[in-house]
Amino acid sequence: MSGSSFGTLFRITTFGESHGPAVGVVLDGCPAGLAIDEAEIQRDLDRRRVGQSRMTSARNEADTVRILSGVFEGRTTGTPIAMIVENTNVRSQDYDAIKDLYRPGHADYTWDAKFGLRDYRGGGRSSARETVGRVAAGAIARKLLATIGVHVFGYTLQLAHLRAQRIVEEEIERNPMRCPDPDVAPQMVALVEQARRELDSLGGIVEVRARNVPPGLGEPVFDKLDADIGKAMFSIPAVKGVEIGSGFEVARLRGSENNDPFVRRPDGAIGTASNHAGGILGGISNGAEIVVRVAAKPPASIAREQQTVNQTGDPAVIVVKGRHDPTVLPRLVPVAEAMLLLVLADHWLRQRAARV
Amino acid sequence: MSGSSFGTLFRITTFGESHGPAVGVVLDGCPAGLAIDEAEIQRDLDRRRVGQSRMTSARNEADTVRILSGVFEGRTTGTPIAMIVENTNVRSQDYDAIKDLYRPGHADYTWDAKFGLRDYRGGGRSSARETVGRVAAGAIARKLLATIGVHVFGYTLQLAHLRAQRIVEEEIERNPMRCPDPDVAPQMVALVEQARRELDSLGGIVEVRARNVPPGLGEPVFDKLDADIGKAMFSIPAVKGVEIGSGFEVARLRGSENNDPFVRRPDGAIGTASNHAGGILGGISNGAEIVVRVAAKPPASIAREQQTVNQTGDPAVIVVKGRHDPTVLPRLVPVAEAMLLLVLADHWLRQRAARV
Amino acid sequence: MSGSSFGTLFRITTFGESHGPAVGVVLDGCPAGLAIDEAEIQRDLDRRRVGQSRMTSARNEADTVRILSGVFEGRTTGTPIAMIVENTNVRSQDYDAIKDLYRPGHADYTWDAKFGLRDYRGGGRSSARETVGRVAAGAIARKLLATIGVHVFGYTLQLAHLRAQRIVEEEIERNPMRCPDPDVAPQMVALVEQARRELDSLGGIVEVRARNVPPGLGEPVFDKLDADIGKAMFSIPAVKGVEIGSGFEVARLRGSENNDPFVRRPDGAIGTASNHAGGILGGISNGAEIVVRVAAKPPASIAREQQTVNQTGDPAVIVVKGRHDPTVLPRLVPVAEAMLLLVLADHWLRQRAARV
Amino acid sequence: MSGSSFGTLFRITTFGESHGPAVGVVLDGCPAGLAIDEAEIQRDLDRRRVGQSRMTSARNEADTVRILSGVFEGRTTGTPIAMIVENTNVRSQDYDAIKDLYRPGHADYTWDAKFGLRDYRGGGRSSARETVGRVAAGAIARKLLATIGVHVFGYTLQLAHLRAQRIVEEEIERNPMRCPDPDVAPQMVALVEQARRELDSLGGIVEVRARNVPPGLGEPVFDKLDADIGKAMFSIPAVKGVEIGSGFEVARLRGSENNDPFVRRPDGAIGTASNHAGGILGGISNGAEIVVRVAAKPPASIAREQQTVNQTGDPAVIVVKGRHDPTVLPRLVPVAEAMLLLVLADHWLRQRAARV
Repeated sequence: MSGSSFGTLFRITTFGESHGPAVGVVLDGCPAGLAIDEAEIQRDLDRRRVGQSRMTSARNEADTVRILSGVFEGRTTGTPIAMIVENTNVRSQDYDAIKDLYRPGHADYTWDAKFGLRDYRGGGRSSARETVGRVAAGAIARKLLATIGVHVFGYTLQLAHLRAQRIVEEEIERNPMRCPDPDVAPQMVALVEQARRELDSLGGIVEVRARNVPPGLGEPVFDKLDADIGKAMFSIPAVKGVEIGSGFEVARLRGSENNDPFVRRPDGAIGTASNHAGGILGGISNGAEIVVRVAAKPPASIAREQQTVNQTGDPAVIVVKGRHDPTVLPRLVPVAEAMLLLVLADHWLRQRAARV
Repeated sequence: MSGSSFGTLFRITTFGESHGPAVGVVLDGCPAGLAIDEAEIQRDLDRRRVGQSRMTSARNEADTVRILSGVFEGRTTGTPIAMIVENTNVRSQDYDAIKDLYRPGHADYTWDAKFGLRDYRGGGRSSARETVGRVAAGAIARKLLATIGVHVFGYTLQLAHLRAQRIVEEEIERNPMRCPDPDVAPQMVALVEQARRELDSLGGIVEVRARNVPPGLGEPVFDKLDADIGKAMFSIPAVKGVEIGSGFEVARLRGSENNDPFVRRPDGAIGTASNHAGGILGGISNGAEIVVRVAAKPPASIAREQQTVNQTGDPAVIVVKGRHDPTVLPRLVPVAEAMLLLVLADHWLRQRAARV
Repeated sequence: MSGSSFGTLFRITTFGESHGPAVGVVLDGCPAGLAIDEAEIQRDLDRRRVGQSRMTSARNEADTVRILSGVFEGRTTGTPIAMIVENTNVRSQDYDAIKDLYRPGHADYTWDAKFGLRDYRGGGRSSARETVGRVAAGAIARKLLATIGVHVFGYTLQLAHLRAQRIVEEEIERNPMRCPDPDVAPQMVALVEQARRELDSLGGIVEVRARNVPPGLGEPVFDKLDADIGKAMFSIPAVKGVEIGSGFEVARLRGSENNDPFVRRPDGAIGTASNHAGGILGGISNGAEIVVRVAAKPPASIAREQQTVNQTGDPAVIVVKGRHDPTVLPRLVPVAEAMLLLVLADHWLRQRAARV
Repeated sequence: MSGSSFGTLFRITTFGESHGPAVGVVLDGCPAGLAIDEAEIQRDLDRRRVGQSRMTSARNEADTVRILSGVFEGRTTGTPIAMIVENTNVRSQDYDAIKDLYRPGHADYTWDAKFGLRDYRGGGRSSARETVGRVAAGAIARKLLATIGVHVFGYTLQLAHLRAQRIVEEEIERNPMRCPDPDVAPQMVALVEQARRELDSLGGIVEVRARNVPPGLGEPVFDKLDADIGKAMFSIPAVKGVEIGSGFEVARLRGSENNDPFVRRPDGAIGTASNHAGGILGGISNGAEIVVRVAAKPPASIAREQQTVNQTGDPAVIVVKGRHDPTVLPRLVPVAEAMLLLVLADHWLRQRAARV
């Protein structure tokens, strides 16, 4: 399908199915000379991993990353960095019962429509497990961007009707929902438990922020920074909406409200007095914090009876078994961070060619 | 900046500044043998044109397209189709007064940060005039997709707090706001007039739909149909949010509500009983109507005093003169249609390589 | 066909048929701030132009370039630079007689096989006239590379059996064959006249050199500098062979002869004592002169009777009329220079992303 | 460096260093439904492997391929096919002595110039071992193209001054030089033995042919079939020259000799009476046999003393130890075949988008 690569100069290609031998990524274009600490990559992978708590599904895999190339004596060499994670804990038999049925909300039918066949085990390539490679590469992007002080972090802003009212960064990793509001976090946890009991699932919103991004990143008119962020986020499974800055709220604002006045910042640089733009103007970073929100649908796999059809279109009732999350939000956080990091790393390199 | 191309097989490259000699596009990859009617291209360009009514700004240009290549005896030849529109009605002197000031909400500052210089006249390349090339190419995509019955149309769903309550397709081109609801349209028109008097501008939401899209389009995992639509829409000036199907609303839905049950359609094909997915599952079209919404910020150019800084960071007051829209929504409609058409045409061609 | 773009960061897209309204190019990715002198572009275009002398064909066009975008107040802005040249002197009726016949050595048949139809006038897009856009963009690449002292020049090394024995750079533009050997040049001129009288055409070899290329350019393993040069040269009409450095001669050399010993150069830098490698080792420039040779077939258009078939495969005799070169070599020189310049400019920009 | 991918729709990305953990490839874009036989891939890998005979170097590795993804129940699924081969027999200590010296004819210096550091063991990524991934992917391309009857094969046409006088396809795999001429093969073998005794190495020419290629493949004007073949071949280590059809010989031909007359073939299709064009006209296949020749330099690693410098430019004497081939030709054959197969597979898929 040749759609498994992302980025122009800092470019990843992911591979692997949920229940195949392994998943992984090749990162091509990482500059030479970057110190790589395998433990740092593993840390982000562990954040993405299932089975961290009762919030997420029960499949528990070590997900130990193995670097196959591109790193020599602890530094990147400028050559492709291949990383793989073996699939060690696969229970494919869970899927035999439903291989001829199209699970509602899943990609079973569309993959059949496209390719004429599919690896039905665990969603195959449309499984969230594919994001392992994104997170591994994102960890290297994080390391690269740290050399210029860029800081990216994300959190669960909203679960169903529950929305964080304040952003306490230190709180995020303290609760299983990665909710940044210590007051709302326990409510979210309780709601997830309730949904699990009700054999149902919950949607929500993840917010990701990037600080200290230098002004000037983004390539109009199609590879605008927000356009590439938009693509990056919509490529994540379950995402149905993306906003930058004030997002859909701008529909109700007037120009006199929405325009961010330019000011001289205390450090002498040019900045803005507000940040409706979410750090991006005309598709180019303006130095303000980049703010992105993504809406994730409730996981399609629910353990109650649903109406569907089989491959020949005959009506059927399906019950999706297996280990499934009642919510993807906490695991979506590191994936959304990774995608933002990948976009920023790519555009930081591209910007080097902007001027004579 | 090398970011001016879009698409993989059906690929456009746009060029041109607002006040330079011309704007245009090269469309590379259009299949050979397609009948081209220059009047049809012109029709979409006329829909995009400013000065159609008091709703939009006063600059009036013929915007006559000239096809330079790729069409022979009324049919595409498979070679690049270059199309240009001369800039005939430019009043650059409007911009001399503000060439050293950064207009709030505009890309002046970020372009300087990126390139170290910019064509300050009328926004240069960040002007909405750049979209001429997109619309011209989109008209050819429309023609191509019509051969398989695909129908794409858009409209102003919301202006400020006013939202269309029903979608009457025939109504859209009857009112200057391209509002599909005959009851709400006059209210929108009145609100625009009010904003103009108040020297202010209005945001809103455009919705675009594609019918009869065959199932199977989209290339997981990064070139998913929704990911490319997301990029396409975020690349349009002023867009700050994009939704597919139920969009941000999915945050509040449960899996049991959001999953679209599969059913056998009256024509025998497999379909879904509802369309929360907006026609895309796992990044691949499922045959249902594709539904996309984009949020557009209120135009940044407003004719009242605003605080800003000059190029050296000194505080200043700016008044943006010239011919400016109090809303971009009606003109955004054909642009958003064009971007959706371009994505669909590209993926329709890509799909031809999906199977042995 | 979507194959009309070349380059990654410094990227061109050409368009236009021989007998359509215009030919041209969009150059995307040229860094901002480069001083552009339209006369310099015109100079290279004039070198490419037909009708410069009796050596080349009689079609005489002003070929005046018009810059449509990307340059403001004499400098590049970082946005796409579109340039067009109108086709003002077209005699399409020359081709009516042969529109159903396949000219031997021409692309008529293969274009029909590919697209099912073609613009038969003057070769359409397979005409050498397409190279106008390459040369215009190459002139900007030349300007860009001049900022770091890179110097590219080419010449006719060989015509039929006549080969230049020495390279006198000043001589090149003094004779219509662009032969660098003042003794051989008149022989070449006489041979062309003879071929013209005999209604035949001549092949030959063009050599192009690049001096002062910094070491480090080229992106293994597929975008090696020589690989991209190879593609660039083979994309030129009539080219059937490409060599770097000692080229095919290496087949007969031993490692002890062919290896270029490394030495310290007088300026202290590392260099090589010989240059069998032609300035490229492992796909990366080594600082030595880059030496490329391309073999061009004799022009296919000859004014004598030839055997062929028509579109239905019936035997026929064809006589190709019109204005045709007995040799393409002098005009090939600026085109080959342009392609080398484009590759070097692209890789110079790409190299900026090689290291942290 | 982001140059490790090749192809547009049928696209490979290779990774891995000679003495790192593994080498491999990700093939993205292989159509779904192709039957894959791991033994067939292994067969081509075995042909590429070192240590097949005394002709090639002594490093002996099983080179067993492992498919990580993209194949399910024996068929491709349309998702990326990742394949790896572990590096099991590495003797890195051979290289410690020379890690600060630049081996003549090798890429040591240029990689340092580019990246500032390199994996010096066994040439790192510039080792011929990188081609493992190409051959594995090429084997899948071979399988894909076999569905339409395309047949690709190669052989050693020339070693030093010894040139095959006839092409007996069955003979090729019978002798260690892959020479198609049973009379010349023993002479080549003897010459290699002599070069080994003299601590020297030999250059030569490999020829590759493709039969039954449908007319119409190739995307003018830059992605011409010969342009992509040229790039493909020049991307192979040691290649310094590439020819199509009559190649450099066209320099001495006249148009009346070089033009291939069109004829009606016995099967009724349009063909040519001769094949100077090597199967490609105007960058598009014409249905005749595609004929490509590549000149390979003598291996740079020779076991005799050579003059060089160290990393600071000081003169030094170097003796390159380790396991080295006196010729690369027999191993180059499957690599050149693979590259031609990859180009053809890519263009066969691209051609599907050529017409409405």
